[in-house]
Amino acid sequence: MSRPARVGDPVLLISPDRKTRLVYLEEGKQVQTHHGVIPHDALLGAPLGRVVHTHKGIPYLALEPSTADLLQYLKRRTQIVFPKDAAYIVMRLNLYAGRRVIEAGTGSGGLTLAFARAVYPDGHVYTYEARPEHQALARKNLATLDVNACITWHVRDIQEGFEERDVDAVFLDVRTPWEYLAQVRDALTMGGHFGALVPTTNQVAQVVDALYKMGFVMVTVEELLLRAYKPVPERLRPEDRMVAHTGYLIFARWVGEEGTPWSGPHLRPVAARKAAERS
Amino acid sequence: MSRPARVGDPVLLISPDRKTRLVYLEEGKQVQTHHGVIPHDALLGAPLGRVVHTHKGIPYLALEPSTADLLQYLKRRTQIVFPKDAAYIVMRLNLYAGRRVIEAGTGSGGLTLAFARAVYPDGHVYTYEARPEHQALARKNLATLDVNACITWHVRDIQEGFEERDVDAVFLDVRTPWEYLAQVRDALTMGGHFGALVPTTNQVAQVVDALYKMGFVMVTVEELLLRAYKPVPERLRPEDRMVAHTGYLIFARWVGEEGTPWSGPHLRPVAARKAAERS
Amino acid sequence: MSRPARVGDPVLLISPDRKTRLVYLEEGKQVQTHHGVIPHDALLGAPLGRVVHTHKGIPYLALEPSTADLLQYLKRRTQIVFPKDAAYIVMRLNLYAGRRVIEAGTGSGGLTLAFARAVYPDGHVYTYEARPEHQALARKNLATLDVNACITWHVRDIQEGFEERDVDAVFLDVRTPWEYLAQVRDALTMGGHFGALVPTTNQVAQVVDALYKMGFVMVTVEELLLRAYKPVPERLRPEDRMVAHTGYLIFARWVGEEGTPWSGPHLRPVAARKAAERS
Amino acid sequence: MSRPARVGDPVLLISPDRKTRLVYLEEGKQVQTHHGVIPHDALLGAPLGRVVHTHKGIPYLALEPSTADLLQYLKRRTQIVFPKDAAYIVMRLNLYAGRRVIEAGTGSGGLTLAFARAVYPDGHVYTYEARPEHQALARKNLATLDVNACITWHVRDIQEGFEERDVDAVFLDVRTPWEYLAQVRDALTMGGHFGALVPTTNQVAQVVDALYKMGFVMVTVEELLLRAYKPVPERLRPEDRMVAHTGYLIFARWVGEEGTPWSGPHLRPVAARKAAERS
Repeated sequence: MSRPARVGDPVLLISPDRKTRLVYLEEGKQVQTHHGVIPHDALLGAPLGRVVHTHKGIPYLALEPSTADLLQYLKRRTQIVFPKDAAYIVMRLNLYAGRRVIEAGTGSGGLTLAFARAVYPDGHVYTYEARPEHQALARKNLATLDVNACITWHVRDIQEGFEERDVDAVFLDVRTPWEYLAQVRDALTMGGHFGALVPTTNQVAQVVDALYKMGFVMVTVEELLLRAYKPVPERLRPEDRMVAHTGYLIFARWVGEEGTPWSGPHLRPVAARKAAERS
Repeated sequence: MSRPARVGDPVLLISPDRKTRLVYLEEGKQVQTHHGVIPHDALLGAPLGRVVHTHKGIPYLALEPSTADLLQYLKRRTQIVFPKDAAYIVMRLNLYAGRRVIEAGTGSGGLTLAFARAVYPDGHVYTYEARPEHQALARKNLATLDVNACITWHVRDIQEGFEERDVDAVFLDVRTPWEYLAQVRDALTMGGHFGALVPTTNQVAQVVDALYKMGFVMVTVEELLLRAYKPVPERLRPEDRMVAHTGYLIFARWVGEEGTPWSGPHLRPVAARKAAERS
Repeated sequence: MSRPARVGDPVLLISPDRKTRLVYLEEGKQVQTHHGVIPHDALLGAPLGRVVHTHKGIPYLALEPSTADLLQYLKRRTQIVFPKDAAYIVMRLNLYAGRRVIEAGTGSGGLTLAFARAVYPDGHVYTYEARPEHQALARKNLATLDVNACITWHVRDIQEGFEERDVDAVFLDVRTPWEYLAQVRDALTMGGHFGALVPTTNQVAQVVDALYKMGFVMVTVEELLLRAYKPVPERLRPEDRMVAHTGYLIFARWVGEEGTPWSGPHLRPVAARKAAERS
Repeated sequence: MSRPARVGDPVLLISPDRKTRLVYLEEGKQVQTHHGVIPHDALLGAPLGRVVHTHKGIPYLALEPSTADLLQYLKRRTQIVFPKDAAYIVMRLNLYAGRRVIEAGTGSGGLTLAFARAVYPDGHVYTYEARPEHQALARKNLATLDVNACITWHVRDIQEGFEERDVDAVFLDVRTPWEYLAQVRDALTMGGHFGALVPTTNQVAQVVDALYKMGFVMVTVEELLLRAYKPVPERLRPEDRMVAHTGYLIFARWVGEEGTPWSGPHLRPVAARKAAERS
């Protein structure tokens, strides 16, 4: 059962003509709509998931936004990760309650939110960002959410390395991930998960090459395409246009330098290698 | 930092020639490989994410499997959900620590596992399956995982309704989801999330139509395509073949019958409807 | 070697800032650009595929448009077929020099052009359209092209049937293709090709069902997705957005009612059927 | 109306259990099937597109194969181009009756066939292949087809250049297309079309880069995905698996070195360049 809405909670408001907006609840404040005013006090204290009315009597839907909804409504200076990618990254990094994960850069905080949701309540997200103004926006975006307690914010160039050790996963959403793999390796626990999102094929090639040189194992490169359909039962068909590319997703695991024989795209049986070394 | 491996833990073993298998640890047992024997005792008591050796001295990688890995290795009588879909369903149903979710049917337990991972430690998964032998397999698949404590297993035809009330989400992976929407509505909290996975366009049309008739809101139909690349830096290209279809994903929310004006594929402003009703 | 440009020829003009337009050459006329004027006479009489200059000395590229280019620049009242679909339809209908094909409806003439290009010089396209104003536009679009000699224009409701017999192929780009299969059958030669383009899954199901009832064989349903890349060597990546759906392509062949045993989606060996009929 | 089948014609034979095979007609020969024998003489002299019977009275469908069918049944030493790609390449190279096109390499003759079909009867295909045994197979594949008259076969390393001049299009299906662009340029007419098919992103980057350096214009990079559906009206859904990658298609046009200002991925207005050169 949903708990009553509190100060700081985000609310999804949907007008009769299906316009959607996100508001954060504050005492004494009002939402101005073109159908009249909705006082925040009409939303506070009762569970969301219901119809509220403006002072003119026009009904609005008031819903608790999902993490996927929040990703779409966060204030942004940068491209925000899409729900399809955020969800898959969480699963491939094996994030769940109790896990500790490093992320760089913070950007607008979209992935920070998805990670914090996954590791809540007793895990932790350490997020790094070199540009203070970006991280300030991300912090503001997530300030009133309960998951905020699971996040440590670092303003720092990751060239200098990460502060944490033995973390379960590291995700890089930066332009040149291949430059920071030594730092990643130092921070990861044995068996830990590495992930990166890059937009171009050139970057993919550079990351994968660097992962092999470093001895990372189980390297994969994937992309996810989301195709939405017009939800009309008697004329069911895909939407006319779609987002064709958000980025390539690269995942790998780190097991120490002992992993080197398992690194690389080709099968290199250890037995064969041993034979080769003998001759 | 990873905890030491314990009895019941699943372990991913990777041979030098990249063959992968999953074993569950038991005291005194042995893994037979074509490179020699690995005693389970060599894996118990130390963290995974390292190299172990067979009695012939051949190295194997021993890794903690991720949820995505487990999905691929579960014993199955039915099609198991793909990680891409499981991850996206978890996000779209807004599942996280503390949430309560109903699932039907259990199948081989793949989605049960993904849901339990997401709501762990203080949420709950209530899973329904009409065929006892399927659920028995699913229970066995998840028996030794810590998330098992979050799962209630029901062998029951969902035509008779769900036992729980005020749950945060209901997911139907059954052949005729449209037949059970009254039962879904009775079980969902206000604002709760509905989801379904169906393989054919005919089923999509029937589900969406039924959702509108019932007054569900925010109905979407989507599908996810995962394209894998050969991870070879100097010859980067997609794999030759891919899984072209796993299923259509349908999501909606339930806000009670008050939601009816927001239901349906077309914009139907309430104001316009009122005017129409007056005349 | 390209022949000299003549009155009536279409020309693709590309400005220094990469704006593209299509003009049809007329004696004594001028193209007005924001870089000055280009007289048609400067284009007439010499092969295209070169740089011309405005009266201000600004260079423009003047190219012979390909069929694919023309498809994009035709004046339209209706959605014009995309080059990817037009090309594949031509191949699947097995159209080439000498073939005779019926098309309905004409629309803006896009597919008419692609078909005429394929069957030129000694084949023929018979195109049907119920709305005279659409066909008038299509005729104007193709009026000065050499392929125009291969086209017969019918303004007629195809419910009344087609005038031609023994044609090699019939293509239906209409809303309810399943209503005209008897007419298609009457017009097709034995072994002839049927094709249709429909936007919704509901229409696909209706067409396919009707094809089976009629005894058409080799029924296929396909769709083509074109993914364009940003052609930047050092940052190669797909375009951000793409056309996600143009239509489902249905193809089949007609061999007379003798074909019935080969119709339908399931294997129905004739031997098994005979046995069944005997008992 | 289909003409009577003649010696050398290819025939598609489909058994009652939907097994398909391709035979070339010869006088006095027989097709052995597991339902009995079909003499070629039963097929010669009458139009295809009908049912024939084995000596045991079992019916077989006998159809004229389309170009798309032939592409699937050609004997091969190399990967044969897919119909989706062949069709699109024909359209993007603007091939039609009368056009002259160079192709390298010949491979198994799949694209040679598609090109010859398109330019027949008065155009020509000049096909180059360095490995005599490949071209021998391709020649044999197409030997009895009418389009064979439109094909000139060259066994030659294209490093030495092409023999023809002023051709309308050149298509390279070779491993390193960027090495032969000077030869392409020498052979193309002004405004002529260039195309290439390469499997990896690394090759795409190299081809595109070389095209810009050479001054080619209108450079595009695309790929086509064909998604097939199970043609079952009441359970319409995509096939489970699909071909995920056949190759990247690169197209460009050649207008001489005057075209250089239009080359390159970014807008580079000539006016701006002139100003820069002056200072």
